[in-house]
Amino acid sequence: MSARLDVDGDRLERLLAEVNLFGALPAGGVERLAWTEPEVDARAWLLERCGREGLEAEQDEAGNIWAWGGARPAVVMGSHLDTVPNGGSFDGALGVMAALEVLTSARSARIPNAERLAMVCFADEEGVRFSTGMTGSRAVAGTLDAVELQDAATPAGERLWDVLSEHGLDPARVLDARDRRSAIGTYLELHVEQGRRLESEDSAVGLVTSIAGLSCWHIHVHGQANHAGTTQLADRRDALLPVAAGILAARQVMQALPGLAATVGDARVVDGSGNIVPGHAQCSLDVRSTDRDDIETAVRRILDAIESSAADHGCHVSAEQAKAMAPITLDDGVLAITRMTAGTGQRLPELASMAGHDAMALAAAGVPSGMIFVRSRGGLSHCPEEYSSVSDCTLGAQHLADAALLLARELPAGH
Amino acid sequence: MSARLDVDGDRLERLLAEVNLFGALPAGGVERLAWTEPEVDARAWLLERCGREGLEAEQDEAGNIWAWGGARPAVVMGSHLDTVPNGGSFDGALGVMAALEVLTSARSARIPNAERLAMVCFADEEGVRFSTGMTGSRAVAGTLDAVELQDAATPAGERLWDVLSEHGLDPARVLDARDRRSAIGTYLELHVEQGRRLESEDSAVGLVTSIAGLSCWHIHVHGQANHAGTTQLADRRDALLPVAAGILAARQVMQALPGLAATVGDARVVDGSGNIVPGHAQCSLDVRSTDRDDIETAVRRILDAIESSAADHGCHVSAEQAKAMAPITLDDGVLAITRMTAGTGQRLPELASMAGHDAMALAAAGVPSGMIFVRSRGGLSHCPEEYSSVSDCTLGAQHLADAALLLARELPAGH
Repeated sequence: MSARLDVDGDRLERLLAEVNLFGALPAGGVERLAWTEPEVDARAWLLERCGREGLEAEQDEAGNIWAWGGARPAVVMGSHLDTVPNGGSFDGALGVMAALEVLTSARSARIPNAERLAMVCFADEEGVRFSTGMTGSRAVAGTLDAVELQDAATPAGERLWDVLSEHGLDPARVLDARDRRSAIGTYLELHVEQGRRLESEDSAVGLVTSIAGLSCWHIHVHGQANHAGTTQLADRRDALLPVAAGILAARQVMQALPGLAATVGDARVVDGSGNIVPGHAQCSLDVRSTDRDDIETAVRRILDAIESSAADHGCHVSAEQAKAMAPITLDDGVLAITRMTAGTGQRLPELASMAGHDAMALAAAGVPSGMIFVRSRGGLSHCPEEYSSVSDCTLGAQHLADAALLLARELPAGH
Repeated sequence: MSARLDVDGDRLERLLAEVNLFGALPAGGVERLAWTEPEVDARAWLLERCGREGLEAEQDEAGNIWAWGGARPAVVMGSHLDTVPNGGSFDGALGVMAALEVLTSARSARIPNAERLAMVCFADEEGVRFSTGMTGSRAVAGTLDAVELQDAATPAGERLWDVLSEHGLDPARVLDARDRRSAIGTYLELHVEQGRRLESEDSAVGLVTSIAGLSCWHIHVHGQANHAGTTQLADRRDALLPVAAGILAARQVMQALPGLAATVGDARVVDGSGNIVPGHAQCSLDVRSTDRDDIETAVRRILDAIESSAADHGCHVSAEQAKAMAPITLDDGVLAITRMTAGTGQRLPELASMAGHDAMALAAAGVPSGMIFVRSRGGLSHCPEEYSSVSDCTLGAQHLADAALLLARELPAGH
């Protein structure tokens, strides 16, 4: 039982390079939006690759790819392969490739309990294409809403339901993916930090204690389009002014509430023209914190600032909540075991995740879940500059392997 | 010589209704962007209509439509038929249809000097499609730049040069339209005010003393795209914050400098997404005033606000001037004569135009030019709600006719 599983960093590097050929952009970075050709091809490649390793590989009703060592329940390691537009090479891909590397190494070294390890690649984690997010993991968690699934569509009106059909899935059966949930004894996700805290603490790896909740909004402001030259100050109903007030308010709220992130990531004048006073403007709002009350306070203050400016400028505001998730505390028992894997006694930094992850969906549904973070260079993520060194990734994968084997010993006997 | 020319308001109304069938939108308003099918068709219809009236009708090298009474130089009345996107039924069209009505009435009533009246419809006044503006009138004025003409294109890359060729013009000969300039003894333009000053003074008609200059800019801000959850306050280089600062600065500058208009009419995050800190944002800036120094002051203050915010947030700004026109004072002699047409001794309001007009291009090139404004309901313009009553339009056209005949008497003998 003391056999050590040594992760093969070279193979991990090759696996990452190979999967990132799917959706590689000429200028660097990758783009694998959920259910686009590069993303579908990447999952198909993964399915085939897992089969070749002799694993029980399958795609479930939601499009998630699984590879089982044989026993159930198992310690399931995983993440996702979809990305944001013009995204990076590590967000998601590292967790899936590390899981595959751990499974491969465990089997080839005939490590005891290797059959109790499994891999999952969840579909549509990022959610940018259909305004969804964690779709595959929520289907497994049993928390994906049937109405949300039916309504999900791109801004251009392309429906997720139709896209799933085109790729050979039966959309009416997506929620059946929840049958896999009981086979997950523990869920463990290796992921890049996407922030600068590990870098500032000079540590390659950290343990995640909790995941921030989020509240996302679509905001429209309606004023009156009019001539940019002839419309006098008192007559202007400029729909862009409340949006500008919201952008600045988000910044101020972030300064006032430490640990909270508030972002207007998208904003535009609708049918705008340089010589017309804006009649219609829109923006997004994304607020995150591990403190549920702070999220509510921040959203209220920012929407108040927009409303107040709108009242001053004769505009009307409509704000619609697009997404809401409560903050999550990860499993104490899993955290205690991942702490033991630090080996030398050096205590790893423990931190909250400000980004949502598939682990969030599973933890919210009561699946014992843990996460390990790998240092991100410069904290950059969701962009081509996203980078973690091979040695940091290998160290993270080694912690994943060690924790997974310890957790596998604790699993109840399965079938 | 005392024969009075009575404008036919019913016919003017019918002419306006007829021309506004071209580009009529289902929800109201019209859209005749320069050199699109509805606009080209409207000018072709006008050319044919003028011919039927027995006028010497022609299209010049720049696509301007002319109708001559016979004598040259003439008092040329006119405006344009192109519109902004989702525009109104009066901006431009009123001036052209009123000119045609005056010519028609003058000929049928055999008014002395009718042969000294002429009409022009200038091409591409609005300039929204190719980022140009007053293209036809500047060609006649001799101030259109050959390089500007060659470079003009839509944001999607469609070149004005090619579009002119497709419509049977020889782009290399557009500047030859300047040969018409010597045939313009005086230029008179009837136009809707597009503001609320006549309405607030309870007057159907006003006389224009000057036309505001303008300074238009394209502004890009570059920061660093990054994850909206994990990027901490100190690490954010949010490209949208300087744009928000510019939007609010434009409003403040407009409050500080009475008579000046400053507008951010278009703004957007480039490749924006709700969960990404904006890495690239852009906006327009449009500043207008009859005071040249005020324009410079306003532009400097607004760009300073953007630069200052960019420095605070680690962003880089590039600002490119897209358009610049100096303020113009209209011809004193023409103004004195249009004053005489008020008839009853009631003095008409005199005001500056905050919008650019074809008269601006001609006046800047030394052509004696005048403008008469018709009251706009609610000051609305460049939108479907743009409206002036038939009686106000008719009164404006009557002033145009009276002034044109008085000015025709003053013209030097021609050929």
